[in-house]
Amino acid sequence: MKKIWQKDDLATNILVNKFTVGKDLDFDERLAKYDVKGSLAHCKMLAEVGIISHDEAEQMTSVLSMILKDIENGDFEIDTQAEDIHSQVEAILIEKLGDTGKKIHTARSRNDQVLLDIKLYLLDEIREIAGLTDGFFQLLIQLADQHKNVLLPGYTHLQIAMPSSFGLWFGAYAEALLDDLEMLFSVKNIINKNPLGSAAGYGSSFPIDRESTTYNLGFQTMNYNAVYAQMTRGKSEKMLAMAMATMAGTLGKFAYDVCLYLSQNFDFISFPKEFTTGSSIMPHKKNPDIFELVRARCNRIQSLPNELILLTNNLPSGYHRDVQLTKEILFPAIDSLKECLEILNYTLPHIKVKDGILEDEKYKYLFSVEKINEEIKKGSSFRDAYIKVGQEIENNEFDYEITDLHHSHQGSIGNLCLDKVSYQFNKLKNKIVG
Amino acid sequence: MKKIWQKDDLATNILVNKFTVGKDLDFDERLAKYDVKGSLAHCKMLAEVGIISHDEAEQMTSVLSMILKDIENGDFEIDTQAEDIHSQVEAILIEKLGDTGKKIHTARSRNDQVLLDIKLYLLDEIREIAGLTDGFFQLLIQLADQHKNVLLPGYTHLQIAMPSSFGLWFGAYAEALLDDLEMLFSVKNIINKNPLGSAAGYGSSFPIDRESTTYNLGFQTMNYNAVYAQMTRGKSEKMLAMAMATMAGTLGKFAYDVCLYLSQNFDFISFPKEFTTGSSIMPHKKNPDIFELVRARCNRIQSLPNELILLTNNLPSGYHRDVQLTKEILFPAIDSLKECLEILNYTLPHIKVKDGILEDEKYKYLFSVEKINEEIKKGSSFRDAYIKVGQEIENNEFDYEITDLHHSHQGSIGNLCLDKVSYQFNKLKNKIVG
Amino acid sequence: MKKIWQKDDLATNILVNKFTVGKDLDFDERLAKYDVKGSLAHCKMLAEVGIISHDEAEQMTSVLSMILKDIENGDFEIDTQAEDIHSQVEAILIEKLGDTGKKIHTARSRNDQVLLDIKLYLLDEIREIAGLTDGFFQLLIQLADQHKNVLLPGYTHLQIAMPSSFGLWFGAYAEALLDDLEMLFSVKNIINKNPLGSAAGYGSSFPIDRESTTYNLGFQTMNYNAVYAQMTRGKSEKMLAMAMATMAGTLGKFAYDVCLYLSQNFDFISFPKEFTTGSSIMPHKKNPDIFELVRARCNRIQSLPNELILLTNNLPSGYHRDVQLTKEILFPAIDSLKECLEILNYTLPHIKVKDGILEDEKYKYLFSVEKINEEIKKGSSFRDAYIKVGQEIENNEFDYEITDLHHSHQGSIGNLCLDKVSYQFNKLKNKIVG
Amino acid sequence: MKKIWQKDDLATNILVNKFTVGKDLDFDERLAKYDVKGSLAHCKMLAEVGIISHDEAEQMTSVLSMILKDIENGDFEIDTQAEDIHSQVEAILIEKLGDTGKKIHTARSRNDQVLLDIKLYLLDEIREIAGLTDGFFQLLIQLADQHKNVLLPGYTHLQIAMPSSFGLWFGAYAEALLDDLEMLFSVKNIINKNPLGSAAGYGSSFPIDRESTTYNLGFQTMNYNAVYAQMTRGKSEKMLAMAMATMAGTLGKFAYDVCLYLSQNFDFISFPKEFTTGSSIMPHKKNPDIFELVRARCNRIQSLPNELILLTNNLPSGYHRDVQLTKEILFPAIDSLKECLEILNYTLPHIKVKDGILEDEKYKYLFSVEKINEEIKKGSSFRDAYIKVGQEIENNEFDYEITDLHHSHQGSIGNLCLDKVSYQFNKLKNKIVG
Repeated sequence: MKKIWQKDDLATNILVNKFTVGKDLDFDERLAKYDVKGSLAHCKMLAEVGIISHDEAEQMTSVLSMILKDIENGDFEIDTQAEDIHSQVEAILIEKLGDTGKKIHTARSRNDQVLLDIKLYLLDEIREIAGLTDGFFQLLIQLADQHKNVLLPGYTHLQIAMPSSFGLWFGAYAEALLDDLEMLFSVKNIINKNPLGSAAGYGSSFPIDRESTTYNLGFQTMNYNAVYAQMTRGKSEKMLAMAMATMAGTLGKFAYDVCLYLSQNFDFISFPKEFTTGSSIMPHKKNPDIFELVRARCNRIQSLPNELILLTNNLPSGYHRDVQLTKEILFPAIDSLKECLEILNYTLPHIKVKDGILEDEKYKYLFSVEKINEEIKKGSSFRDAYIKVGQEIENNEFDYEITDLHHSHQGSIGNLCLDKVSYQFNKLKNKIVG
Repeated sequence: MKKIWQKDDLATNILVNKFTVGKDLDFDERLAKYDVKGSLAHCKMLAEVGIISHDEAEQMTSVLSMILKDIENGDFEIDTQAEDIHSQVEAILIEKLGDTGKKIHTARSRNDQVLLDIKLYLLDEIREIAGLTDGFFQLLIQLADQHKNVLLPGYTHLQIAMPSSFGLWFGAYAEALLDDLEMLFSVKNIINKNPLGSAAGYGSSFPIDRESTTYNLGFQTMNYNAVYAQMTRGKSEKMLAMAMATMAGTLGKFAYDVCLYLSQNFDFISFPKEFTTGSSIMPHKKNPDIFELVRARCNRIQSLPNELILLTNNLPSGYHRDVQLTKEILFPAIDSLKECLEILNYTLPHIKVKDGILEDEKYKYLFSVEKINEEIKKGSSFRDAYIKVGQEIENNEFDYEITDLHHSHQGSIGNLCLDKVSYQFNKLKNKIVG
Repeated sequence: MKKIWQKDDLATNILVNKFTVGKDLDFDERLAKYDVKGSLAHCKMLAEVGIISHDEAEQMTSVLSMILKDIENGDFEIDTQAEDIHSQVEAILIEKLGDTGKKIHTARSRNDQVLLDIKLYLLDEIREIAGLTDGFFQLLIQLADQHKNVLLPGYTHLQIAMPSSFGLWFGAYAEALLDDLEMLFSVKNIINKNPLGSAAGYGSSFPIDRESTTYNLGFQTMNYNAVYAQMTRGKSEKMLAMAMATMAGTLGKFAYDVCLYLSQNFDFISFPKEFTTGSSIMPHKKNPDIFELVRARCNRIQSLPNELILLTNNLPSGYHRDVQLTKEILFPAIDSLKECLEILNYTLPHIKVKDGILEDEKYKYLFSVEKINEEIKKGSSFRDAYIKVGQEIENNEFDYEITDLHHSHQGSIGNLCLDKVSYQFNKLKNKIVG
Repeated sequence: MKKIWQKDDLATNILVNKFTVGKDLDFDERLAKYDVKGSLAHCKMLAEVGIISHDEAEQMTSVLSMILKDIENGDFEIDTQAEDIHSQVEAILIEKLGDTGKKIHTARSRNDQVLLDIKLYLLDEIREIAGLTDGFFQLLIQLADQHKNVLLPGYTHLQIAMPSSFGLWFGAYAEALLDDLEMLFSVKNIINKNPLGSAAGYGSSFPIDRESTTYNLGFQTMNYNAVYAQMTRGKSEKMLAMAMATMAGTLGKFAYDVCLYLSQNFDFISFPKEFTTGSSIMPHKKNPDIFELVRARCNRIQSLPNELILLTNNLPSGYHRDVQLTKEILFPAIDSLKECLEILNYTLPHIKVKDGILEDEKYKYLFSVEKINEEIKKGSSFRDAYIKVGQEIENNEFDYEITDLHHSHQGSIGNLCLDKVSYQFNKLKNKIVG
């Protein structure tokens, strides 16, 4: 298949083609349906402003709709000889419609096409990520509520510090997701702007109507400036990578806690054997590979923004082919993040939390501040009580009977405020998914 | 000065102190006023819920207000013997008020104090950054409007592509700032939540009222969960770093364009000699060091999120001293970003743009698409016209008379939509600054 | 196929398996032959120290040799049901040899097996990279020599500075590769140490002889300490990533220069049309996509060390499953670097350099230092001559006739020292490849 | 003080000066003595080849030697009005020697001066780092030997795995430093090449003798190609950053282990109270801040290579002012790494290791492989014995009497090979320091 820009029969060197197209066609498959939707909106608009006739638009629409149906049915494949999805759709139009097909690319470039395709694709993925995050959030909230009365040692500096609870622990990660969604929401807003019509980054001298395509493609607004629209290539991907890295930071930290708490030296939680893996040499092993791999994948995801910055940085304005690689960097990472959320959503309902952890002698100093607070209630100042209890500990005279804890303030063991956090989360999630 | 946690007279080794406190006191100076404001709100709340008496609260308020005044007047210095700002303020209260002063730290830890201080500080810096960004935005809009009729070659792949204009070029960077502000706004929302009351990350058994401090400190809402509130340490800094990196990406790219356009091989713009620097060996040099350093600083800023991720990653939940270093990583970078905006705001009004650039023979192919479009208007299909003009170029027969360009669509040379972009920018900026 | 560590018939959840094994089997295929070689050396040693009989060793050797032959003939496939290559080889041995096969894993763990496999694989790739680098080096040296008399403007700050030449330009990148090879050589030394015998990271109580396997596998020495041997997992990969990033820094910079010099605004070099690509909208385009993609790939490679640091950082000593991902991070990047070298080696012989560049009026100030030097030869001090020529430029009186340049010092236009650089390069390359 | 490149009395804008010079003068102070040494070698060479007279060279040498003495005595300060150290030294020479002083900059640029200064400075720091690393290495070797019989649980996946020992643990980190030194050595070789004579990156038309300065400054060889010599700016810093990051990876991992082992849940080691810090709220706290900060600083250092890559990447060949920032990125990090080594060298001799750790019931499965090995010795195959012991564990029938362990192979508990590792380390260290 001849490239659309090939001017004569010079056989483009196969090696060059292999090097430049690379794995790109695989990623183009994800973009196919968005590309056709873009062509549908473009062709409708061309007719509206009189650049093509309504009859021509109808013919193209009919072919494009057929291609879209094929894609949605999984019956569409990108020709391995095609340079990209954009060229292939144009080729089909020309094959079916002759001269009319040759008009589809009027007032357009592959640059704004791929910008559009990627944006539409990322917006769909943002919705999916938000949906899976919602699942994880609801699970954490439910576990926090279910285990709100089971105490856990709280650590600072990995040294035992003060009493905590499974309610606080699960709830903390739920609330973390709320902030992560805030970031995702702003990224959605940034991406949710129509780039179509910017052509090769300098617009067109045809009187196209970008409001029309903005409306028909469901965008909130448009990237007005054609030069800036082009700059969003790479930037959209980087912004989503930042939001993903933020969420990956939360998931990875949770996975780290899980691995630590599963260690025999902590032994706070456990999972059924099916959720662990064994060793080739040590028959006693039940390893938390799932959580180690969630952590590891999330660490890869956290390296994404930097990778995309390195790719796109210190390039002057205007398109450069370098940005082709954003697809192979970002798209598999999106899959990976979704898989992490899926496996957490699948695994976490099976977690078992241990009761009576704090009864172990080594945890008694967790209650040093409780004892200080009792002194304060008896009239001492904080700092004097601190010194007194410190002296008892120093002299090995510290003792404390664990009785019920009565934390009552917002966000404490006895008052998790799960409803307040849920309310804020749901509101935000609906803005993203809706 | 003895540390507040020192239990006996063991001289904490000076070397240990030097290593652990490090450059921290310098950064604490920025936090001093926020620390005192936090203590004021905390002490008000302690009295409201009856943990201390109203009389005690009044005494403390009076001393704290005095300290605050000293800070605002520049009369406050952190004692080099003090461990940190928090310890020093407590020491002053005890010195002035005796036992009453010893009550200030009731139901509080340095952990939530420093969380609070940093958040309040970052919120102020976010407002300042938004203000400076506003200045740069208005300047770009004005320059775009002023030079909207001066044409510029547009490039793709650094190859000449299609006609652009100074209007498009300046306007593109203005619109970029709009998206950058969207990110900054979400970060403001994430940071704008009260952590006070989370104590060492596990709350307090005193019946404190976190709504009171949330209200009095002007936060939008609170970080409810005490464990999560603690997790925001490092995360707040990382989020702001992401927003700063986003903006730095824009400024750095602009600076790159400027350096390129100042090269004799482009020669599109110039600055008065005062804005350039010379060489020790070549007497003809007028180097664009300002813009190279803006670019370089912005590249450092773009490395921030990664640096903060590396610092805070793979640590289990609960405070770790590691996060102390977020201050020395982030705070100077905030200064640096503001200085970049300041120097751009100072320098850019002096830019001179060159007229008649496109008259140079080497730019004639910029108009190949114009010629195609003319063929289309005469009835040809796009693809046929493309092939025809391509053939002319191949045969060295391409010629084109530059006449007026008539780009009219939204975001094109003839219709920059600066008012629309300004409207969106101002709305967002007011939400951040206001 | 049952996992070797599966203790009963509990069906390991398919989802868990999919998530944990992931894309790993693909990468295991590269490791297959090294794994078998390791087993051959291990089994020889077990017999030497009397842990198995010589007869058993012979039987195993025979089966393993057969598997190795299959692998080398491309007749070996990893069973998609297998957990990994290690398990599959053991399964074949048991299938063919019964109880004798069950002895292969004595005094060994998959941990030291995979450590070994990866090291052997990386050592082979290091040799290949050095070989391809040699090709590129020789090409650059040849081009430097061929075009040593063709002048080029030298830039600082992207401003024209002093005369340079294609000899200097090509030669600079050749010499850069010399330093890059120094780094690669040290990484080879670090990786070239036998980890086999460290088992799960804590050694074995069997009296194995690690000198034997070190010798038979061709390692320079061994990672003695079993705990450290385990730590080299992830570290070997990281070290190679650093060496690759160093080389990618050189290739990427070269590619950047090429893209810039191909721009119509520089126009210093050109390539035949087959090495460029076109545009879907602009019929005049001949874009340097190859070089943009070399740059882009090299920028991805430069992000590798950071990605691997993020993956492996802040993990306590002892194996963690996280390191599984080093394969999917590093292995495709090795391919990519080699492909970059291959395409450069294929493309660069076709480069055309332009003659007479400096005749353009805009380059005249390149010679300001020549004029100063003439003044010095006439008796002026440098600084006075600098001021005098500076004044001439200021007054628009500067003029200079380009005559022959007579740079004679080491590494200057007239004395490229290509032989000296080649000598050092070849010496180093032989140490790596040999 | 007027800049050396200032051509008239136009007051260079103060703001511009502040922005471009920035914190640079502070870092120049470290470079002062190397700058003067460079001038001494340059001036000697100028006389040798007859560009200046021997008498002039003697006068300059005398003034330069005086400046050098002042610097070494701490009596030299960079004038805050000076642009940089290079300008100031020239100014002093002119002040003292008049016209003769004006000749110092013949055949030289600030570009090759700063290249030289930085290389000489980095070479000194490399030697210092190697020296401190040596101290840490010897300490670890000594601790490994001292505690070689004290057992420790070995972990994989943070799950208890097999017996380890303090001998293995300390020894592992010692051996890690050996590999880290290999990297440092190659970086020394890369940096240890004379750039002087490359001038502004394009050499000089004066017949300078670069062999002379190479010899007199003590370099191993030179960066021949003038364009490449210029490219080493930024690259030298990046290479050292990679070596530092490698070592920081080792120190940070060690510090992580220490923090974990100090946790009450592990409780394997302890330090005297002076080496811990307390809490403002919890009187029982003895926090390992020193080690957390070693880890945190080492994580910052691990971010250095990426930061320097971002700074210098995607810039075409030729000097850019961007590289000025390498100083403020790298120099403080060198201090920080040395301080980490110093505090470890100071603190580690006070470590106390706990005896009898493995007696705790929870560690019994550490011996599952020992039991398998006993079965093997009785005649079972490994895999059958694995299954048998696995079944015992499954049925809760596993029991094991800890008797003496008899690991004898190289690098195992009973045979640490500390002498072999020391021999290799010392050889390498001498090559760096010597």
